[in-house]
Amino acid sequence: MTTSVARDVAVTAIAEELVGLLPAGAVLTEPDVMEGMSRDQAAWAPYGRPAAVVRATSTDDVVQVVRACLRHGVPVVARGAGTGLSGGANALDGCVVVSLERMNRVLEINRLERLAVVQPGVVNDVLRETVAEHGLWYPPDPASSPWSTIGGNVATNAGGLCCVKYGVTRDYVLQLEVVTGRGEVVRLGRRTAKGVAGYDLMGLVVGSEGTLGIVTEVTVRLRPLPAPAVTVAGFFSSVVDAGAAVRAVGEAGLVPSALELVDRHCLRAVDAWKNMGLSTEAEVVLLGRFDEPGETGEALAEQMVACFRGAGATWAERSTDEDEAEALFAARRLAYPALERLGPVLTEDVCVPKEQVPEMLARIERIAVRHDIVIANIAHAGDGNLHPLLVTPPGDEVARARAEAAFDDIIADAIALGGTVTGEHGVGLLKREGLTAELSAEVVEMHRAVKAALDPSHLFNPGKVFTSPPTTSTAPPTGEMS
Amino acid sequence: MTTSVARDVAVTAIAEELVGLLPAGAVLTEPDVMEGMSRDQAAWAPYGRPAAVVRATSTDDVVQVVRACLRHGVPVVARGAGTGLSGGANALDGCVVVSLERMNRVLEINRLERLAVVQPGVVNDVLRETVAEHGLWYPPDPASSPWSTIGGNVATNAGGLCCVKYGVTRDYVLQLEVVTGRGEVVRLGRRTAKGVAGYDLMGLVVGSEGTLGIVTEVTVRLRPLPAPAVTVAGFFSSVVDAGAAVRAVGEAGLVPSALELVDRHCLRAVDAWKNMGLSTEAEVVLLGRFDEPGETGEALAEQMVACFRGAGATWAERSTDEDEAEALFAARRLAYPALERLGPVLTEDVCVPKEQVPEMLARIERIAVRHDIVIANIAHAGDGNLHPLLVTPPGDEVARARAEAAFDDIIADAIALGGTVTGEHGVGLLKREGLTAELSAEVVEMHRAVKAALDPSHLFNPGKVFTSPPTTSTAPPTGEMS
Repeated sequence: MTTSVARDVAVTAIAEELVGLLPAGAVLTEPDVMEGMSRDQAAWAPYGRPAAVVRATSTDDVVQVVRACLRHGVPVVARGAGTGLSGGANALDGCVVVSLERMNRVLEINRLERLAVVQPGVVNDVLRETVAEHGLWYPPDPASSPWSTIGGNVATNAGGLCCVKYGVTRDYVLQLEVVTGRGEVVRLGRRTAKGVAGYDLMGLVVGSEGTLGIVTEVTVRLRPLPAPAVTVAGFFSSVVDAGAAVRAVGEAGLVPSALELVDRHCLRAVDAWKNMGLSTEAEVVLLGRFDEPGETGEALAEQMVACFRGAGATWAERSTDEDEAEALFAARRLAYPALERLGPVLTEDVCVPKEQVPEMLARIERIAVRHDIVIANIAHAGDGNLHPLLVTPPGDEVARARAEAAFDDIIADAIALGGTVTGEHGVGLLKREGLTAELSAEVVEMHRAVKAALDPSHLFNPGKVFTSPPTTSTAPPTGEMS
Repeated sequence: MTTSVARDVAVTAIAEELVGLLPAGAVLTEPDVMEGMSRDQAAWAPYGRPAAVVRATSTDDVVQVVRACLRHGVPVVARGAGTGLSGGANALDGCVVVSLERMNRVLEINRLERLAVVQPGVVNDVLRETVAEHGLWYPPDPASSPWSTIGGNVATNAGGLCCVKYGVTRDYVLQLEVVTGRGEVVRLGRRTAKGVAGYDLMGLVVGSEGTLGIVTEVTVRLRPLPAPAVTVAGFFSSVVDAGAAVRAVGEAGLVPSALELVDRHCLRAVDAWKNMGLSTEAEVVLLGRFDEPGETGEALAEQMVACFRGAGATWAERSTDEDEAEALFAARRLAYPALERLGPVLTEDVCVPKEQVPEMLARIERIAVRHDIVIANIAHAGDGNLHPLLVTPPGDEVARARAEAAFDDIIADAIALGGTVTGEHGVGLLKREGLTAELSAEVVEMHRAVKAALDPSHLFNPGKVFTSPPTTSTAPPTGEMS
């Protein structure tokens, strides 16, 4: 912070230059306006004050920003809708934030090739609805799908409910247009169904959280729309029983299109808000879905019911009422906002081997007791991807400190059980220490080498995902967060 | 070649050092023995004379080789079963070839997590048979599956017949143990179903053809065994009609588990060998498969029959006879060896957008006429992945030159139609110019940057996939091929 005067001069210079380079209205510099575009939804993650926010409307806008930032040695932070949960889109002091939200056109839908070409600012649900009109389906369905953008989904390699059968964002990206660390526009990947000419640089960019370049166009693979889903619900009196049910489903060789867990904290919060009466019925609810057509789907659903009952479900049925089934999944989707009514929610995102789901849930319960904190659980149980939700009373700084300690304990336990610190939300700022704990020093060093190779000026989102290397005489200016 | 004396000294030194470091019998230096392990099955690709061939039996053996080669500045070329078709495993003069064939143990099969951990030398079919005993399935099924190894499949990101529904090798790799360019052992990826902690370095290694490290252990994702397949066969009197049928299948939203095309040249070659009587029935055969259980699979098969008939099939039926269905797929598998009986076969591997399959097949016919060469076609038609097979009379050097010119024309046409030069075989040596034609100069430069970042000594398979950067004063010794 000893260089604040010099930095302020730089701020003015880059902002002024961008105003001259970009369309009218594209460059925002008013502090109040910038504040709202300087962070994502990660509670308590630090964020800085940008020099400017650019609302890009074309690839060329992004090129202009990147080249200007290269000339000025100013970091670039890309953002979509700002729905991230790890601080990955949080601004650095003096950086330029590039919002891709206005690049929101669906450029092509190709029914025969089963692909769509979109700009990064297209909202996930908009893509899903648009391709559905052509009988096509874009499977990745993060809970943020009504708001989050495809560009953000690509940056975090977003998951969702259907991953248990259909995979994650990475599995649906065919080609990317990217503005590189040299200010060039490249196409990575291809439009063909297969292709192995060269390294999978496209896959490297997916999930890189804006640290390797800025994605300006995305070609996604689509599937035919699946058959209407058959839903199975199971009520359990303990997390251990529910875990046994998840295990039984796996051992039976079933591959549901969703297998979600909602615990009593979530059920109570939903009931307190919407009075659905779930929390008087169960301590834990499991929701399964199959999208195989006709009798096949029904037979699979009956097999899941048998798995649930065999594991001790107090109630388990295949839903024959579509409204009832939809209400159960609505309760799962409402869990997060219902908890947010109680206070700030710190969202965890660990993923463990499926066989460790009951043990991880048991450990989370012990962590909640140890730190005297409410930890609710929603989970993509079929994937072993748990979202412990740490709820603290508004304004209670002591509780917040306890929650942060619990957050660290959950990460440590997930790693101890052979899991990962982030299943689908990304590392951002909140999981940087977790990443270092999970990966070996050699692998972290490989990350730094790849970052330096593709972003030699350390322009893109520096300090996110992993910390920068020790400063050397040739190190570029690093942004800081206030 | 002016440094041949110096190189011979280096050869002796590295071979002697390796004999001292490795178990008895691991190091081969006899020229005749090495000759057989110095190339893959790419007709006419150049290959050099290695300093030594090492038959590794453990990760530690590989570490010893890599560290010794680092000390001596000698390139390392890894190989599996040598079934590659692009020269990717061909030796360089003075290199050390590391054969992973003896690292052929299945280390773990986990039914609940649906994964297996194997050494790289496990043969694809052996893995498939071993996991089938547990009700599990490893989908990637390259035609080389009776011989090719999982390590080789990972190196080339191998495809196969079932990719059209189930994806390629990359989609089934969860974790890799890799010996790096610094002689370290790292684990990339993870065992959990999901995970986004850091870059997808594992995905970067898959398909990198031995240029970024040596894979010493592979954790693969498995699926439950699918239902028995229902087969559909269609006979067509022209490639154009067959192309229209493939298009109709796509437009109907069908996702078969295989959709293969076999042309008249292949049918005749198979008949000349096995007298199956196919070539009198059809100019082109399409074979489709569905693995949905029971009535669902049968209904899908009937839809495909309707697509075939609507596109002008002279005959199309769902096979009700399992032996007949198996015979048809056997004919497809026999096409390649049947053609090899006629002379050396140069195998192409272009992949085009599905809508361009008829046009690409028409262009291949014109190329065959233009260069006066026999070009047979087998194709993963549902993926747009074509395997034109260029057949030349044994020992006819003039025909070989014509075949090589035709090979280049096919590559150029595939790129012109928006395709790729290699769908699943890899770049190796044969497609290096094709890669440069397909990718932009900036993207090739990104490849070089990534290679330099992860293999700073240019140790691994230098000169494969893309050429080395212009020589600088710090450039490592590059291997050459005689």
